[in-house]
Amino acid sequence: MYALYYSPGTASLVVHWLLIELDLPHELRSVDMAGRAHKGADYLALNPNGVVPTLLVDGQPRYEAAALTVYLADRHGDGAFAPAPDDAQRAEYLQWMFNLVATLQAPLRLWWYPSDLQADDEAVRRGAQARIEAACERLDAHLGASVAQGRGPYLLGERLSAADFYLTMLMRWTRKLPRPAHEWPHLGELARRMKARPSFAELYRREGLEEWA
Amino acid sequence: MYALYYSPGTASLVVHWLLIELDLPHELRSVDMAGRAHKGADYLALNPNGVVPTLLVDGQPRYEAAALTVYLADRHGDGAFAPAPDDAQRAEYLQWMFNLVATLQAPLRLWWYPSDLQADDEAVRRGAQARIEAACERLDAHLGASVAQGRGPYLLGERLSAADFYLTMLMRWTRKLPRPAHEWPHLGELARRMKARPSFAELYRREGLEEWA
Ligand SMILES: N[C@@H](CCC(=O)N[C@@H](CS)C(=O)NCC(=O)O)C(=O)O
Ligand SMILES: N[C@@H](CCC(=O)N[C@@H](CS)C(=O)NCC(=O)O)C(=O)O
Repeated sequence: MYALYYSPGTASLVVHWLLIELDLPHELRSVDMAGRAHKGADYLALNPNGVVPTLLVDGQPRYEAAALTVYLADRHGDGAFAPAPDDAQRAEYLQWMFNLVATLQAPLRLWWYPSDLQADDEAVRRGAQARIEAACERLDAHLGASVAQGRGPYLLGERLSAADFYLTMLMRWTRKLPRPAHEWPHLGELARRMKARPSFAELYRREGLEEWA
Repeated sequence: MYALYYSPGTASLVVHWLLIELDLPHELRSVDMAGRAHKGADYLALNPNGVVPTLLVDGQPRYEAAALTVYLADRHGDGAFAPAPDDAQRAEYLQWMFNLVATLQAPLRLWWYPSDLQADDEAVRRGAQARIEAACERLDAHLGASVAQGRGPYLLGERLSAADFYLTMLMRWTRKLPRPAHEWPHLGELARRMKARPSFAELYRREGLEEWA
């Protein structure tokens, strides 16, 4: 039994999505971010970074959305969403998970929270936007090459993986940018496929989301 | 047989270190960063991000230092440096790997490459420095609590893991900051332990490094 500290549409979304997709028993614990509950002593004792998500795993608080994604996909679903450690695609899979965090999530964090840097917010946002667009360009080129070579539409080619769920969450976060990720053709096609999963509709229902549906 | 595209002291360092520590046959391919070889067409065909490291795994180019770290520690050394996917400490291990990337490596990248954001370099550096120091504070508190509770000096308590190698590389990158990471007491103790490993001396010899020894 897992317990997820979450807030709708945030970095907890991918963890919630996988809990639904993998049909894992779990409890949801809403974090009142408007009321700054994530900066209160109770929550900081679970997650000293003061961010969502936190997942109770065997009763222990664990954090970092990407870490929880890798963890859940390895542990459950009989490898449906993650190549096993001895699989030839394992290095590729881990590469994409960390690449998404380093090249897309990091500048997206700055775009949504430019004050993290206490510099000129507008300048930080412009710089972050350029990094995000450059990452989209590279990801789209990768997907396009894969399709052109008959290897399939996902980050790992034919093989859907948890990295595609992660990328979809990050694409959703670009929806208010001047050029959202789904406007790149292959990224847009990936978003359409992922949104067509019944688990996505169920996730939206449970989190009460409507945007980017 | 692995082949590592590297440059001394950069993000390739942790991969090189693990190749030595795990005693894995490998070939080193020096990337002339001063000559901007990492932005040339040959290298970009291996790694479209134009950064080091890249590792040839079964002949395929794979990148992201943290991904390569997790990959090598899972695949080799009989679990000496990574809890297996069904181990109770797996979620904790993955948490630290991604937490180091998100909270320490990302602002360190901005500190070393403030022009990534094309904003005011000095302001970006000041902001990055504050993020780096906040991350050191949290990591030091975690290690301190672990020691106080008799659980040992590493990120996973008694158990040394690849995450400690990764953290040590990132600590090395703070050596020119006003307050380097090793000045926090528990981080300093971890750095001393990691530097005392024979593989660290061998790494320094092979990369021709002297600073922070
Ligand atoms: N590296 C963390 C970042 C999580 C994160 O930035 N969460 C945001 C919501 S999307 C948050 O909690 N923000 C509140 C704040 O920083 O004050 C992860 O991936 O889990
Ligand atoms: N996320 C990448 C980042 C690697 C990175 O930033 N490498 C630096 C050296 S430490 C680099 O190649 N910089 C050259 C550049 O960005 O032009 C990783 O962890 O492998």
